[in-house]
Amino acid sequence: MNALAGLGDTIAAIATPPGIGAIGIIRLSGADSILIADKIFKGKKLAGQKSHTVHFGHIVHPVLKDDAGDPELIDEVVVTIFRGPKSYTGEDVVEISGHGSPYILQKILEASITAGARNAKAGEYTQRAFLNGKLDLAQAEAVADLIAADSRAQQHAALQQLRGGFSGDLGKLRDQLINFAALIELELDFSDEDVEFANREQFQELISDLRARVSGLLDSFRLGNVIKNGVSVAIIGKPNAGKSTLLNALLNEERAIVSDIAGTTRDTIEETLNINGVLFRLIDTAGIREHTTDQIESIGIERSKQNAEKAHIILLLTDVTDPDTTPIRWLKPYAGKTITVLNKTDQLRPSGKQISPSAIAISAKQNMGVDILKQRMYDKAVGTTIKTENSIVTNARHYEALSKMMESLNAIEEGMKRHLTGDLLSIDIRRALHYLGEITGQVEVDRDILGTIFGKFCIGK
Amino acid sequence: MNALAGLGDTIAAIATPPGIGAIGIIRLSGADSILIADKIFKGKKLAGQKSHTVHFGHIVHPVLKDDAGDPELIDEVVVTIFRGPKSYTGEDVVEISGHGSPYILQKILEASITAGARNAKAGEYTQRAFLNGKLDLAQAEAVADLIAADSRAQQHAALQQLRGGFSGDLGKLRDQLINFAALIELELDFSDEDVEFANREQFQELISDLRARVSGLLDSFRLGNVIKNGVSVAIIGKPNAGKSTLLNALLNEERAIVSDIAGTTRDTIEETLNINGVLFRLIDTAGIREHTTDQIESIGIERSKQNAEKAHIILLLTDVTDPDTTPIRWLKPYAGKTITVLNKTDQLRPSGKQISPSAIAISAKQNMGVDILKQRMYDKAVGTTIKTENSIVTNARHYEALSKMMESLNAIEEGMKRHLTGDLLSIDIRRALHYLGEITGQVEVDRDILGTIFGKFCIGK
Repeated sequence: MNALAGLGDTIAAIATPPGIGAIGIIRLSGADSILIADKIFKGKKLAGQKSHTVHFGHIVHPVLKDDAGDPELIDEVVVTIFRGPKSYTGEDVVEISGHGSPYILQKILEASITAGARNAKAGEYTQRAFLNGKLDLAQAEAVADLIAADSRAQQHAALQQLRGGFSGDLGKLRDQLINFAALIELELDFSDEDVEFANREQFQELISDLRARVSGLLDSFRLGNVIKNGVSVAIIGKPNAGKSTLLNALLNEERAIVSDIAGTTRDTIEETLNINGVLFRLIDTAGIREHTTDQIESIGIERSKQNAEKAHIILLLTDVTDPDTTPIRWLKPYAGKTITVLNKTDQLRPSGKQISPSAIAISAKQNMGVDILKQRMYDKAVGTTIKTENSIVTNARHYEALSKMMESLNAIEEGMKRHLTGDLLSIDIRRALHYLGEITGQVEVDRDILGTIFGKFCIGK
Repeated sequence: MNALAGLGDTIAAIATPPGIGAIGIIRLSGADSILIADKIFKGKKLAGQKSHTVHFGHIVHPVLKDDAGDPELIDEVVVTIFRGPKSYTGEDVVEISGHGSPYILQKILEASITAGARNAKAGEYTQRAFLNGKLDLAQAEAVADLIAADSRAQQHAALQQLRGGFSGDLGKLRDQLINFAALIELELDFSDEDVEFANREQFQELISDLRARVSGLLDSFRLGNVIKNGVSVAIIGKPNAGKSTLLNALLNEERAIVSDIAGTTRDTIEETLNINGVLFRLIDTAGIREHTTDQIESIGIERSKQNAEKAHIILLLTDVTDPDTTPIRWLKPYAGKTITVLNKTDQLRPSGKQISPSAIAISAKQNMGVDILKQRMYDKAVGTTIKTENSIVTNARHYEALSKMMESLNAIEEGMKRHLTGDLLSIDIRRALHYLGEITGQVEVDRDILGTIFGKFCIGK
């Protein structure tokens, strides 16, 4: 029995992906997990075994008998014991590793349920890890992000968050805020005496430093969003500008790694490109490709407009050998997200023709300048100022809490300018601390919010 | 280092099903697996750890560095060590249990490869288990059957085979054959002396016992095939005989368990029914259903004929209230596999009308007699004489080897009748022993055959 068993019942779920594989795992967690495992495991008695040990044996049904009257045999397995608090959930955990047949795994799960476990809800293991203090809330959220990761940038951001990097940064902000509150207390203590406040300047400095840090985190959400959801790119250009050649030149270099892995196919078919670990999604490629062939121009333009509208980045491809230099007028509103790409520069004869300094000259066919274009795409999406080693906000819930915290910090600064008294300022300080605490779950978090967070997990995690 | 390390290199593969899940496992096997794991694992040094222990830590890339110059971090994991020969393959095995993201598992696999492992081929772990003497060939084949199991009967047959039940039975046959050979030797020793052979009768008895046993195994293949591939059932009857009502009555009772499990959907859409753990596939149900509505009769008959031809069992459904009693003539050739079902017996008024004693009277609508029908279907498919506790041949390769062994046994019996000399008989005895040994791999098995057997496995098993 472990001390953290207070969460009540023991939960069970298949923890490996659905489908057929070599190995499949059923995971039990809770005070009775070893007791329950012993009811269905034939081999050594598990109750007597040490934590972090593995045992070979058989799973049998706790009630059903076979034709010979012996307990119904289900599988040959190895069983791993993790005793709380040194386990994923902080409770006693048993992992049953059987043959990767959905039928058999279902039978082992059913045997566990009959023996006293109940079916785990989505994310319930990680939720228990949070409730048992094994992970804070931001770390728990990182678990789901890590499982969903399909690019290096996603994986890194999630892993950094899981390992507590982000929580550590928030902890520093928290320390500063508490420090600030202490100074306010000090001011309150001296408020009866009409002394000059040496600390006023220190206040200003502290609050401006805090604002800068929170502002940095808020800014990082743009990158975080890009990391998490990828960057959509529309390639726009007149017929024969070389759009499909450019597409091939972009893709041939390095196809998105995920496309080779079974089970990661997305609902919509997109060409994806991995630049420095960030996923770029070349949207509606079919449309783009069609567009290069002769077709009724108006349909092509309509489709291009839609692509341009929803894309994060527009690659405006121009054929430098094309004598027609009329600009595509409807692209004007999107100038901020447009990268102008001059194609076929290998065919350009020295003519003194002016090339815009912000444009990128390439030859898609000769694969010239494509790397420079990729770097520009990356810079445009990710920005050049934010370093990926720093904490990155990838989570909309965190962004919202930080935004509200920023409002409180602004209110504090405003209050100081208006020489509000310390007890009034401290209301906003408490508010800022509250929003900060919501991210890591240090303050009481609404049950609905927890439900939303863990409901997004898969069953078994 | 373990003594069985002679197979050379260390192999690595993702062992869990593809797709996203809570947990994913990479498995290493080979003499260097712990050495290789230590190159990518940050935590305790694994080389010093005991077998069957689990260790928390991080997987890093053995070469790549992150922006800060530290080894590129891939995942938080637990690692399990199995030291040969007490492992699945009989070699040193390391299982790395990480987050169930296809991207991350691929990265861990790549790191393992960079650190010195090579990608495992399909079934290579089980092949090594066979080559290292952990499993005989029939047991190794049972592993694949177990993973593919999606009914209780499949699971039981595979598990019985995996646990050595089938091999044990073959071992007994082998012992008898060797015993027989010894008697022949004895005969040879005394061949110069003109003594009466007291053993002649014992010979006869032995060979007839052997033939009975092999014949029993050969007979069990019919059941084995049914268990492995299911039983196809065509419901044939005139329009309005109540075919779809019967179909629903059959299905409503107990839908095939597998239909609830993700990832087991078959290529062709069939209604499946689980009777006593055996899968019955109601083939071309759409056709059967269509047939109940009014349509051009000739198309219906053509489709019914095709169904009847390919089905293992035909349910011939007759409406007892239908005054038209003309038999369906084209069904005659299939009488042996036909079960006659009289429907709507609840509407039958006492009329003295003769009901065939072999027919089953039901009311599909009132769900009367459906259980009796199911039992009849089961008996017809599985047979009533063969008990499922006995060894069942489920594998065509085994059936072939046993058939050839039977031919040798027949030759021996024939030879004894013709009073062949012992040295001539012993050729056939050796041949019989050879075919027997092919099943379990006790004799040298052709590399191509091994390739075929293990090529059917999934990667990672």
